[in-house]
Amino acid sequence: MATSTVAEEISERESKSKETMRALVFHGPNRIGIEKVPVPRAGVGEAVLRITLTTICGTDIHIVKGEYKVRPGLVIGHEPVGVIHELGAGLTGYKVGDRVLVGAITPCGQCGSCLSGQWSQCGGPIGGWKFGNTIHGAQAEYLLVPNAQANLARIPDELRDEQVVLLADIASTGISAAESAQLKIGDTAAVFAQGPIGLCATAGARLKGASLIIGIESDPSRASMARRMGADVVLNFQECDVVGEVLRLTDGKGVDVAIEALGTQGTFENALRVLRPGGTLSSLGVYSGKLSLPVEPFAAGLGDHKIVTTLCPGGKERMRRLMEMVRYGRLDLTPLLTHRFKLEQITEAYKLFAEHRDGVLKVAIEP
Amino acid sequence: MATSTVAEEISERESKSKETMRALVFHGPNRIGIEKVPVPRAGVGEAVLRITLTTICGTDIHIVKGEYKVRPGLVIGHEPVGVIHELGAGLTGYKVGDRVLVGAITPCGQCGSCLSGQWSQCGGPIGGWKFGNTIHGAQAEYLLVPNAQANLARIPDELRDEQVVLLADIASTGISAAESAQLKIGDTAAVFAQGPIGLCATAGARLKGASLIIGIESDPSRASMARRMGADVVLNFQECDVVGEVLRLTDGKGVDVAIEALGTQGTFENALRVLRPGGTLSSLGVYSGKLSLPVEPFAAGLGDHKIVTTLCPGGKERMRRLMEMVRYGRLDLTPLLTHRFKLEQITEAYKLFAEHRDGVLKVAIEP
Amino acid sequence: MATSTVAEEISERESKSKETMRALVFHGPNRIGIEKVPVPRAGVGEAVLRITLTTICGTDIHIVKGEYKVRPGLVIGHEPVGVIHELGAGLTGYKVGDRVLVGAITPCGQCGSCLSGQWSQCGGPIGGWKFGNTIHGAQAEYLLVPNAQANLARIPDELRDEQVVLLADIASTGISAAESAQLKIGDTAAVFAQGPIGLCATAGARLKGASLIIGIESDPSRASMARRMGADVVLNFQECDVVGEVLRLTDGKGVDVAIEALGTQGTFENALRVLRPGGTLSSLGVYSGKLSLPVEPFAAGLGDHKIVTTLCPGGKERMRRLMEMVRYGRLDLTPLLTHRFKLEQITEAYKLFAEHRDGVLKVAIEP
Amino acid sequence: MATSTVAEEISERESKSKETMRALVFHGPNRIGIEKVPVPRAGVGEAVLRITLTTICGTDIHIVKGEYKVRPGLVIGHEPVGVIHELGAGLTGYKVGDRVLVGAITPCGQCGSCLSGQWSQCGGPIGGWKFGNTIHGAQAEYLLVPNAQANLARIPDELRDEQVVLLADIASTGISAAESAQLKIGDTAAVFAQGPIGLCATAGARLKGASLIIGIESDPSRASMARRMGADVVLNFQECDVVGEVLRLTDGKGVDVAIEALGTQGTFENALRVLRPGGTLSSLGVYSGKLSLPVEPFAAGLGDHKIVTTLCPGGKERMRRLMEMVRYGRLDLTPLLTHRFKLEQITEAYKLFAEHRDGVLKVAIEP
Repeated sequence: MATSTVAEEISERESKSKETMRALVFHGPNRIGIEKVPVPRAGVGEAVLRITLTTICGTDIHIVKGEYKVRPGLVIGHEPVGVIHELGAGLTGYKVGDRVLVGAITPCGQCGSCLSGQWSQCGGPIGGWKFGNTIHGAQAEYLLVPNAQANLARIPDELRDEQVVLLADIASTGISAAESAQLKIGDTAAVFAQGPIGLCATAGARLKGASLIIGIESDPSRASMARRMGADVVLNFQECDVVGEVLRLTDGKGVDVAIEALGTQGTFENALRVLRPGGTLSSLGVYSGKLSLPVEPFAAGLGDHKIVTTLCPGGKERMRRLMEMVRYGRLDLTPLLTHRFKLEQITEAYKLFAEHRDGVLKVAIEP
Repeated sequence: MATSTVAEEISERESKSKETMRALVFHGPNRIGIEKVPVPRAGVGEAVLRITLTTICGTDIHIVKGEYKVRPGLVIGHEPVGVIHELGAGLTGYKVGDRVLVGAITPCGQCGSCLSGQWSQCGGPIGGWKFGNTIHGAQAEYLLVPNAQANLARIPDELRDEQVVLLADIASTGISAAESAQLKIGDTAAVFAQGPIGLCATAGARLKGASLIIGIESDPSRASMARRMGADVVLNFQECDVVGEVLRLTDGKGVDVAIEALGTQGTFENALRVLRPGGTLSSLGVYSGKLSLPVEPFAAGLGDHKIVTTLCPGGKERMRRLMEMVRYGRLDLTPLLTHRFKLEQITEAYKLFAEHRDGVLKVAIEP
Repeated sequence: MATSTVAEEISERESKSKETMRALVFHGPNRIGIEKVPVPRAGVGEAVLRITLTTICGTDIHIVKGEYKVRPGLVIGHEPVGVIHELGAGLTGYKVGDRVLVGAITPCGQCGSCLSGQWSQCGGPIGGWKFGNTIHGAQAEYLLVPNAQANLARIPDELRDEQVVLLADIASTGISAAESAQLKIGDTAAVFAQGPIGLCATAGARLKGASLIIGIESDPSRASMARRMGADVVLNFQECDVVGEVLRLTDGKGVDVAIEALGTQGTFENALRVLRPGGTLSSLGVYSGKLSLPVEPFAAGLGDHKIVTTLCPGGKERMRRLMEMVRYGRLDLTPLLTHRFKLEQITEAYKLFAEHRDGVLKVAIEP
Repeated sequence: MATSTVAEEISERESKSKETMRALVFHGPNRIGIEKVPVPRAGVGEAVLRITLTTICGTDIHIVKGEYKVRPGLVIGHEPVGVIHELGAGLTGYKVGDRVLVGAITPCGQCGSCLSGQWSQCGGPIGGWKFGNTIHGAQAEYLLVPNAQANLARIPDELRDEQVVLLADIASTGISAAESAQLKIGDTAAVFAQGPIGLCATAGARLKGASLIIGIESDPSRASMARRMGADVVLNFQECDVVGEVLRLTDGKGVDVAIEALGTQGTFENALRVLRPGGTLSSLGVYSGKLSLPVEPFAAGLGDHKIVTTLCPGGKERMRRLMEMVRYGRLDLTPLLTHRFKLEQITEAYKLFAEHRDGVLKVAIEP
């Protein structure tokens, strides 16, 4: 299915809609604002949610700055919690009013990629990421969910919106680092950068059974949160030789799993430098420009190293499983929701978030 | 290497030894006692430990009752913590006086099985289990360790003997259930029987990222310990329909991973009955007599089920990794060491342990 | 999605259809016949094929004999090759007239099972198998395909119907045995029974890199076909001690992978008896009655054995991949299509097939 | 075990030996020659082979050119077939006169890396590679084999030296590319460069069940050999746009597995450019200088790509398994042995091999 065609069809339907809603619209680098746009209508296999909680992601900052390209006129945001407002034809097992979580990645489940278990690459490269990228996103009062049968995850009654909203993207992404690395019980791990994704990667390494977990972070409040999320040691790269220190902490061997959660040459390279032979570099960062792979810590290609990258796993089953982890007390991400804004104030929230002010980690947005 | 030949060689060396030690010798069903026997001497690639702490295992009870056959005259026991007393030729990196943990399973690392990653089946079926099975065991003042280069795991200074002794067998075995099942973050698990192995299996399911963990156990003190080790719910099979209750707790789906930790037809069968299609039955039990596989919960062979069995993983690297888990606070098994006896009183300890008296879980034996 | 509801909806639509077609209808044990029934109509997400080639499966024989229960009135058969006749709403990328292969298993791609990679267990136990089981099947002039977006696999122009029809079920099933066993390059394999599924399992073991492949079969023409499909040795269980012979051929070690392709106690048990410690029994058979697991070759549960079962993998991506194997000359199953009948003569074909007459392996049915 | 210490001990033993042998000694860049050196003597756990066949590897060319550093005075070469001449203490199951193959990589089997299944990284980075790197190598009349119990693989009587000598390094390395990539049945593969390693990688992709295999090579005789080893198509990078052509051959999707078998920036980068989202780049090359990872085909780190590197798997079990593949006709590498020289003429052979003259692929060296 050509995403552009889908996007066009959706636009057409929307323009026929008479109801309007408030949404954050991107018009070009640093040109965003709350506007009135048509409420979407659900086509075959689609659903419309009334958003009850969403957030701003680091990727949204890249979009607003013009560093990641999306079409002007797009509503952005990709972390939706809401209530089913309309159900299109062909859906079963749902009813209007159901409270649901939808992942940032919304696979169709029915293309060659999905049927190979590559749900995030649905239909083509990065194709699973649709919200706020190729179709309208979640920073709005209503949201159209494509392939809704595969993507609406009912929220257990005992969980509040705040407890699950971060599962849509950062928790699913962060936790996937240890999963993609196939981290084993007793493995050591180093997690480079303890922003929201890195903090979730730390939690994920803990959940999967790492022994020693080393966080790398210079910001004291993030360092402290890293310890809360499961890091045993947090190294401040401004105050010590991180590579030397990690080697010292692992008896000179290096870690079994090094997680890159920032997207820079420096962290990527250091992740490789602290890796033991046969270890895995699990990369979550979004890189730009050039990335160089230093040959010496790469053992000239003879070190049995693995480098794996992961785009946020999505789909309703992933969301269900992560919600079960919250439900049974294995994971509590509410400390990461440091601030809360109304949708009308979202541009203010963007500013705070972009400037890393006030100890911000994640911002809850309430339509 | 024919184990019998090794055993004969060792016997010969021992008979030449002039020093003697106290050891628990098996002479036939229900005929065990502390005796004076020669202190072993280290041959090429071997080491002798002075035992500082050991325990009694459920398997030892089977041996004493005659249910598992070993040769009369054998010193039994297979969970050794000690200090290196003598090092044979060909060993490097160790010195007399080093405090070490040795797994119940002592792979050679150099046969076809070991070089295929099947260390527990070293040299042939169940061949990795040597102590107290094919060669003298650990319920003694001294212990000869074969293939010592692969099996002596130095204990970090900050860990006491009590903190690591249970890693040799029950923790390594118990934790392996979730590992062999390839339990994933968010999986549900049911653990049948919460004896020492089952309790460690519960801890292992937790360490590997299970969401809901259901223990099955009727003994109230074991049920309580199961909760401490990570079970969310403990079902008393004498008071409820276990299969029905597990299905209810999992919305009718069944668990992703069912762990059998007892070795009976009933628990094996129930483990299968609570398993979802595509799920894994991870079996740790030692079965005798006949085992029947009910065709209906097995979906006539069409349910994409897996049944995996695991013999305790051993070798010094496994021990090192488990000790790291203890060191970093991921695992604390000291609550399972409910009783402590001197080696001289070991027959008393056997009685207590065999009769499940006095809330006993594991018994520490101190030579 | 409740399959029964779907089935009811489909029935309703069919009854409104005015066109009729010939189809093989099951009315109860040993009561089948070609009848006029309504041509199905495509609903949302569905397609209707005009069947150009299909076959009879061993499972159909079980259905006809009443050994596997389906509802009277059902059209049976589940191996369809055809041309798209009608496309329902919500499908993209297909057009009427496309020549397609559809797997015996038709996953939705959008339920919790599918989104966990358990496509064959779509919606519940064995839920991926719909054709001729819970909805009308392929031994007809037309066939309604549910979840068509996930299940219509276009056939490359250079491949004839005869070259791909067996991929729908027996090839996908047979090949999955080595896949599910994670057979590695250099592994030895024994395949018990060389009927159509076993022959494909033999081909699969070869494709995945087995070294020595041992077939077990008494029928001389099947034995000969087994050699053609990749077996190095074929043992006639009526003329030799199969277990002893397999052990002899593997230097006493046993095979790495034992494949059961019949569904009887004897073959299941022998598959276990020839397995090395740490090996995998990959089971394809459909079992009835009681299945017993002999404790001794199972090493009392201590042999690190795995038992895995697999229901035919389906979905359009699986079909595409298998067609690529045919296209590049890796797999040629046309020798298995020993007979060919018109749809009108299908009851005759059933007889021949059920009685194993005339060297029959698979029968092509042409509407 | 510190390799240097081992090397020193061995040197000491050798200097006491009175027998001498001819061996190719490296004295510095482009300074090699046949010399008389002491015949090695077997210490504990070691064996001495009388070499009957060996070869020259591309890595040896790097050593001779001074591009890969080894100590002057070292005998080089690492692909030994021979007959056991002497057995040290502590070995069982072997006798003088046994004909054996030894891998280029000789793991101890007993260190932390080996007991983690990382045999090639025995003792530390690239530590499994000892012959002609940290200890004397195989281009000599006699060879000392360390950790002999783990490394002597008896050759089946029906196999000639010529049939197995290439398994020691290039076949084990080449085949590992598809193994490390976890290539699945039906996957497409592209293999960059069809030198000896690339040709074996092509054979490996075929053995593991690839559908379309695309070789990339400009030399016509190597292109022709690539087809013989299993490539369906061979692209000449001097005559076509390789990336465009691979995409065309895979319907625009890219390959599932891209194998790099040369060790240059260009091939590494192209391997990434032809890879589908979620695909695996399996790297065998030895890189020098800088390696850059182009961000665009890497999907900025969001493509679920994997990059895996593999150092030649060794140990006697690996050799046994590969010999079984030859024995059962799955693999025939004798066409790669294009030339044959006596040990005395080895410097001539080095010249021919380094200059890629005369269609040379691999050179057999006979002491």
